[in-house]
Amino acid sequence: MPTHPTASILAIGDELILGQSLDTNTQTIANALTNAGVIIHEHATVPDDLTQLTDAIIRLTKTADLLITTGGLGPTKDDLTRQALAKALNQPLIEDPKALKQIRTWFTSRNRDMPKANRVQALRPNDAHMLTNDHGTAPGLAARLYNCNIFALPGPPAEMQPMFNREILPTLQNPDAPPVTTRILYTAGLGESYIAGKLAELMHRDHPVLIGTTASLGLVAIRIRTTLDKDAAQNQIDQAEVKIRKCLAPAVFSDKHTLPAYLIDRLTERNETLGTCESCTAGLVAKLITDPPGSSAAFNGSLITYTNELKQKLAAVPANIIQNHGAVSPQCAQAMAEGARLQLETTHALAITGIAGPTGDTPTKPVGTVYIARASNNAPTDTRHFLFKGSRDIIRHWAATTALTLLRLHLDKVTMPLPCQQ
Amino acid sequence: MPTHPTASILAIGDELILGQSLDTNTQTIANALTNAGVIIHEHATVPDDLTQLTDAIIRLTKTADLLITTGGLGPTKDDLTRQALAKALNQPLIEDPKALKQIRTWFTSRNRDMPKANRVQALRPNDAHMLTNDHGTAPGLAARLYNCNIFALPGPPAEMQPMFNREILPTLQNPDAPPVTTRILYTAGLGESYIAGKLAELMHRDHPVLIGTTASLGLVAIRIRTTLDKDAAQNQIDQAEVKIRKCLAPAVFSDKHTLPAYLIDRLTERNETLGTCESCTAGLVAKLITDPPGSSAAFNGSLITYTNELKQKLAAVPANIIQNHGAVSPQCAQAMAEGARLQLETTHALAITGIAGPTGDTPTKPVGTVYIARASNNAPTDTRHFLFKGSRDIIRHWAATTALTLLRLHLDKVTMPLPCQQ
Repeated sequence: MPTHPTASILAIGDELILGQSLDTNTQTIANALTNAGVIIHEHATVPDDLTQLTDAIIRLTKTADLLITTGGLGPTKDDLTRQALAKALNQPLIEDPKALKQIRTWFTSRNRDMPKANRVQALRPNDAHMLTNDHGTAPGLAARLYNCNIFALPGPPAEMQPMFNREILPTLQNPDAPPVTTRILYTAGLGESYIAGKLAELMHRDHPVLIGTTASLGLVAIRIRTTLDKDAAQNQIDQAEVKIRKCLAPAVFSDKHTLPAYLIDRLTERNETLGTCESCTAGLVAKLITDPPGSSAAFNGSLITYTNELKQKLAAVPANIIQNHGAVSPQCAQAMAEGARLQLETTHALAITGIAGPTGDTPTKPVGTVYIARASNNAPTDTRHFLFKGSRDIIRHWAATTALTLLRLHLDKVTMPLPCQQ
Repeated sequence: MPTHPTASILAIGDELILGQSLDTNTQTIANALTNAGVIIHEHATVPDDLTQLTDAIIRLTKTADLLITTGGLGPTKDDLTRQALAKALNQPLIEDPKALKQIRTWFTSRNRDMPKANRVQALRPNDAHMLTNDHGTAPGLAARLYNCNIFALPGPPAEMQPMFNREILPTLQNPDAPPVTTRILYTAGLGESYIAGKLAELMHRDHPVLIGTTASLGLVAIRIRTTLDKDAAQNQIDQAEVKIRKCLAPAVFSDKHTLPAYLIDRLTERNETLGTCESCTAGLVAKLITDPPGSSAAFNGSLITYTNELKQKLAAVPANIIQNHGAVSPQCAQAMAEGARLQLETTHALAITGIAGPTGDTPTKPVGTVYIARASNNAPTDTRHFLFKGSRDIIRHWAATTALTLLRLHLDKVTMPLPCQQ
């Protein structure tokens, strides 16, 4: 019986080894490989050191069918992936004329001359071939060592991801290996540990379908995956979906779209529009809802009212509400949502006011206190009180995704309390 | 001469290997070890597999003074760190009565009986000792193999972090080892490859200080790092800083702050304020400028004018500008900045209008066309035309950081063209 290919992932860079940057590439790649049915053997990270990098390449190619490296392809002296790969392959580095031309074009199309330093990016080990980078100057490299296919990808996620999708994903389709069938259910409004508890039995490794979760601040995607044959796969996945929906209803909202794309889709089909009025999140909700292309069909705009004066001036929050209840209050959140909806001339408006910290708290309003309101043309305003825990960044992200979740509850006529709701 | 201790970090778990969860423990630990002067050799991640885990422990203990593992200490069948450590040490697992008592107490203090499954958490290899876990049921383990001190910590960050701080950090204080001295210079307005070219000679690895760059869409941080002794270190780092500033002037703006924090700081000390008027970035500039705590001292708010109607209504853009030049035009960007500045009552306003794509382009305005304007109370408005390349997300981020850079140029009286400027 054909078996699944194995892979290892190697991240390269002092900034990762030193803990200055968080490596997200490895997770992205691991996730995509897993979904394609690849068994992942190991992840490793090494510094910008030629010996260590070469040793790691040699070691990892001996135990896997596929080695994917990220980083070390820039134009500087600490970018050593080209040299390490040449050393591992025991081959000289040669200049690739086509790659050099592409790098030059990258600069000339931006009205710049190619700096001398970038010329090294056109080097490749003799038997390797280059992978075009449409989003930066660093071409990738593909080579073979000890029956292992090596792909060296650039470190910036925006360059790595399209190259991975174009060059590596298609090579993983092995017609003899059992296909991998996956489905994703998107949820909003449940914590990851709550979901893990509810799905504990289904998530057992002996189960015929593998169920995993990916959580991002109140938004949890549940992946169902199986390597069973086609009909059996559909059947098992359908069964798992029914069970998951039963456990987690009504938090599952889509099997296609992330929350912003789902909301834009729903609003567009209803011919409705959205605006926001944001204090502590300062535009984060507006940024998230405009991430999907085509969001202009349903999103009008926002009022970012960081100061009390602008809450009054732009969103018409009555001065006495701020005087009597403070800017961080349910009354203010409600007035912001209702005022912004009129001002922005939208069907719905979401408003957020809170204390993202680390300072600005009071004895009765600790850091993480956030009021979120959803106002609509045809329904009473829904205002809720939250106490989010974590850093300033985490509190702001929780608040933003929770505001979007409030709109989803309204559009889908769903009633439920949300995480951290007081 | 005393040398720096070396360490490797091993993360354990199928959820990491499969890409279901993002490992943040390794970065946390790497950062703390680096700050304590430890040289980090490698990061690795292995699945919940006894052979692979045992092999990784043996391999990593051979090349470092310290091995820190995270994960695999829970009560389930997948949790194999105890067994792997016993196998690596070639010792039997024994039950630790004190640890068992602590685990029982953890449950009884929460009015629960200890589930049978948790009893395995009191097992340890014969010569290892247990590390108390004040925040969960999984005790840590400490052992020694091949001159390497091994610490096995639990996976949940809230349990890992206090145990690391209490048990490991104090053991790293070696008064004889030379400290690691670092400095970071922040730049705005230069591409990473341009910087790499300029610094090529300084970045040579034989240099007494190590220089590295981390780039994020027009913002490049330059790290200077040395393990020389104190006075020599200061001297070498000062020299490197002078050289770097000479190469990259006037793009270096701070050795303390990222761009948003720097701008807030500068504005606050000048007693000035900022607002934004954003179309295609839809709040991203406002979100970035409020990332630093205390940004309310200088940031008032924003107008997110996604529709043409709101550009006119909120930012007072004259209708004929939109009719004659379109919403994506230098005239509109200028009017947005000047109108928003008056409306938001700020010293400065930044405005962005453009085509983030993937649709919405015209023959004369391709995807990536962005106009950015900076208006101020005491200076002519600076409006520039950019053509950013990349995905919707990348175009929006470039536009946002470029807008912030425009303000920095004004505050510091710096004149320079910016990347992708037309």
